[in-house]
Order: sequence, then C-alpha cells, then structure tokens
Amino acid sequence: MKITVKVPATSANLGPGFDALGLALKLYNESVIESSSYFSISVKGEGSDKPHVKTNNTFVTIFYDIYKKLTGRRDNFRFSFYNSIPFSRGLGSSSAVITGAIAAAYKMADFQVNKEHILNQTLVYESHPDNITPAVYGGFISAVIHEGKIIKIKKEIPSNIKAVVVIPNTAMSTERSRAALPKEYKMKDVVFNLSHAALLSSAFMSENWDMLKTASQDAVHENIRMKALSELFEVRRIAYEEGALLSALSGSGSSFLNLVYEKHAPKLLNALKSSFKEFKVIELDIDNDGFSILES
Amino acid sequence: MKITVKVPATSANLGPGFDALGLALKLYNESVIESSSYFSISVKGEGSDKPHVKTNNTFVTIFYDIYKKLTGRRDNFRFSFYNSIPFSRGLGSSSAVITGAIAAAYKMADFQVNKEHILNQTLVYESHPDNITPAVYGGFISAVIHEGKIIKIKKEIPSNIKAVVVIPNTAMSTERSRAALPKEYKMKDVVFNLSHAALLSSAFMSENWDMLKTASQDAVHENIRMKALSELFEVRRIAYEEGALLSALSGSGSSFLNLVYEKHAPKLLNALKSSFKEFKVIELDIDNDGFSILES
Repeated sequence: MKITVKVPATSANLGPGFDALGLALKLYNESVIESSSYFSISVKGEGSDKPHVKTNNTFVTIFYDIYKKLTGRRDNFRFSFYNSIPFSRGLGSSSAVITGAIAAAYKMADFQVNKEHILNQTLVYESHPDNITPAVYGGFISAVIHEGKIIKIKKEIPSNIKAVVVIPNTAMSTERSRAALPKEYKMKDVVFNLSHAALLSSAFMSENWDMLKTASQDAVHENIRMKALSELFEVRRIAYEEGALLSALSGSGSSFLNLVYEKHAPKLLNALKSSFKEFKVIELDIDNDGFSILES
Repeated sequence: MKITVKVPATSANLGPGFDALGLALKLYNESVIESSSYFSISVKGEGSDKPHVKTNNTFVTIFYDIYKKLTGRRDNFRFSFYNSIPFSRGLGSSSAVITGAIAAAYKMADFQVNKEHILNQTLVYESHPDNITPAVYGGFISAVIHEGKIIKIKKEIPSNIKAVVVIPNTAMSTERSRAALPKEYKMKDVVFNLSHAALLSSAFMSENWDMLKTASQDAVHENIRMKALSELFEVRRIAYEEGALLSALSGSGSSFLNLVYEKHAPKLLNALKSSFKEFKVIELDIDNDGFSILES
C-alpha cells in the first residue's frame, strides 16, 4: 500500500484572532508512505538540509504513536517527504506535520479517515486550534476549544482573493515569541481584540473584504512580536500602500500574510519583492479543502 | 410639525462580546415631539413613576443640545414619551433615549436623518457601540470603534428565532457593575473571549443557531455580574433545559436574554414564568430595522 498525504500551510491569528482564527494556503507538505520490508526516511525540500529532520522525525514519531495504537504493530514503512512549508516561519509547518502524520496513520492502519476525528486527535500534540483546524478543513476558520474538542465554523474563500506571503530569512521561535508577551491585559485591550476578532470573522463570513483592514487590527501580540524583526512594520506599510486588504503577522512570525484582490496581487507582489530582496515573497491561493490522502 | 420616533430595546454583549456585540428587540420607546407655543413633557409607561424623568429628562436635554447646534434656536416643543423599555435593566433604555433624541433633533431641525451620521453622533453621549448600533440599525451587530467612528457589520435575524427575556424586579447599575470587574485579565481569558466572540459572530452570520450555546460562553464579566443576583444562574440552567439556543446576561444586567427557535418559545416562556413569578418574562421578536421616524 502506498499513500500520499498532502497538507496545506496555514496562517494563524490574522491579527486579533490570537489562537482562534486562521486560514489555509495552497503550499503543501506531501508525504508518501509505502509498506516496505525495511524502514527508511527521505526528505526533499524544506528540512532536507537539517540532519535531525531525518534522525528524529516528528512526522514518523507521531505516525507510529497512532499506528501502533490502532494496529498493535510497528510495521516498516518507507517515508518520503516533499516539504514546501518552511520551518519556524509561522506558516503552520508543525501543524501540517501533526495533521499529516495522524491522517496517514489512520489510512495505513485501514481505519476510516474522518476529518473531525483526526482534528480532535491533533490536540494531543498541539493545544491551539488556529493552525490545525485550517490544515484539516481549509478555508477561513473561526475555532474554540470546548470540553477538549475543537468547535469550528469554516468559510470558503473565493478565488479572487489571493495571499501574498513575505517569508523572512530568519526564524522566530513560537515559544520565545509567546514568552515575550505580557502576562496580563487591561480590559480595554481585551475589548479591542474581542471586538476586532468578532468583526473580522463577520467580515470573512459576509465576504466584506474592504472591512478586513480595520477589523484585522490587534492590541495584544503583533507589535511586541514584530519588534523582533522591525522590517515587518515596513512590510505592512508597503502592503497597505499597494492595495492589501489585510496585512498581519502569520502565526507568531516571522512570515507576514497579505490578502489582496487578484487584480492587485501582481503589483503587491512586485512592490514587496523589490523592497525586501533578502526575503522570499510568494503569491499563493487560499486552500479551501484542507488535507487530502491519495492512495496509489 | 409632529413626529414619532420609535427606538428598539437592545441586548448587548451576548456573552463574550463585551462592548462589541448586540441585537435589537421589538420592544420600543416611542417619543412624540410636536411644535408648540409652550414647552411640556409627559411620560407614560416606564419612568412615569419617577419625578426626575420629567424634571431632568435626558431625551429633552440631548434633543435641545443637538437642535440648538443645528438651528441656533431653542424652540418650544411638546414631548410625549411612551416608554416600554425598562430603566436600568440592561435592555438599552439609555441608548434608546440617546438615539431617539438625536434622530428627533435632526428631523425637527429639518436636517437629513442619516443613520450612519446619527450613529456617530451618539458617541458624544455613549462610548460603547454594543447597544447604540443595534438601536440604530436593528438585527445582530458586530461593532468596533475605529478612529472615533463606529464600524459595524449587521445581520438580519430570521423570524423563526425569538427572544424570551427575563426582567428582574431589581436594577443593576452599569457603573457599579463595571467597577466590580477585574482590572487585568490573563492571556487565557483574553483568548477565551476573543475566540468565542469570533465564533459567535460567525454563527450569527451563517445562521448556525445550534452553535450559539457553545459560542456564547464568556470568561470576563458574566459570572462576576450574575453573582449580584444569583437567581440568574438558575434562569440560565432552566433556559438551556427548555431549549434555549443562547442564554446570556443582557448588557450589564439585570435582564437575561434567551434566544430560542419559535417552536420552543412557548415552552421556554412558561417554564421561566412559573419558576420566576417575581420577575417579568416576555417573548419578543428580533427587530431588524432599528429606529424609525414617522411624520404626521
């Protein structure tokens, strides 16, 4: 048996929606798993230059965790990873690994791959729903954790909305980034973020794209995190000047997500490329499907 | 010239949407204003037993504030108030007064009554958008204040969704109620409220009524406020037992808003009436229009 699991990159928070809002991007990690008489790992693309990705592979660890629970066996497989999602850049690479590994284990163990079930299994490995949920379902996602399960509403994003993603050449650690945040917030900041997160969700749900800029403002984490890489303030300034609808730190960074009407995407792409030659700037479609498994 | 301004009651917060979310109810304050050779005030309904409502009437004060600014004159009018919105019960009576007074002044001064303009004028008298905005536009409202203006998204609520409102016989002061709240909140509470406010808005926008119960949970104000009138916990328990879709403190209380499918409304109404004989329990439709002015 040979399967290919394809999991999209994701961009979480979207400004005020800390640990709650996210969307999926058409940039994928593809993992091919096949039954084999011996165990092997090969890595192409992102992570291929890091020896620990082969020796201590998170996908493989989680895969066997689940596979052994489901079958009682530790069979040999050949794992071939084709990773397009950069590591530690706030684009959901670890959520993609977790989601892909669990889904693959269910499939290889010949169990039903139920998205809701896979989603809730991810909570063993990842406590925030904002990357995991769009990785599973695609689209724009508003999520909460309720009684140990992820409860979500999904909205498919039409194809005339594009993402232009700026990927800096340096990583940001999620843990360090979280540790830099204040321990307590004043009520006015609580109200700022909840009111903006609510308006932002309402804007996505009603396709009120011109409201994204106002609605995507944040008072609790972005500025503090962006100070670690101050070019990001300039990324945002240029993005809005060039027609971005929303310009927000992607997850805990270091990438920046810009949403834009299709017709303005080339202009925005070029402006950001020419201003930030040391960063990667790419145009991506929104993924509305989440992970998929192909059997061959 | 004689006009009647009709402004709906409103229910703000809806659980997690502190100072941000609200909806309008078909329970109205009607104010009749007519040109007259002498000045007079009459009050019927709510407030008619309070002498200060006649002697120091907020509607009249705000009306003349605006009217004088627009016309330069302080003409005499006869004011007749027919108030159905109870005072200090968390049903937006003061927002109704502010909205009605400003709209009436524009109309009597022969200026255009533009809802967006009226809305932003209200900010002089009321700094939170969650009652004012549904009083102006009706429906479900998600709002923020941005650069001194209210930015909102509105969703009309279909007629098969009803409100069953429990109105206690004691008031709660908004100021005292606000003062009882903590000065600072932990990140987990910030995330709880912003994620639930976002999900709640998404649920309203997509008419996902069965998600309202989960999405309308709050971590920053309700429990603290409800302790001032502990029967409210029992109101909520019974409401959910009897089919409520959402059961939340209305504004800063003391009223409780329950949303319910039309078919379950009679059962819910009766259960709450028989359990809380000392409280008023009424069924109301959602108002989708906001204030209106009739000229006669």
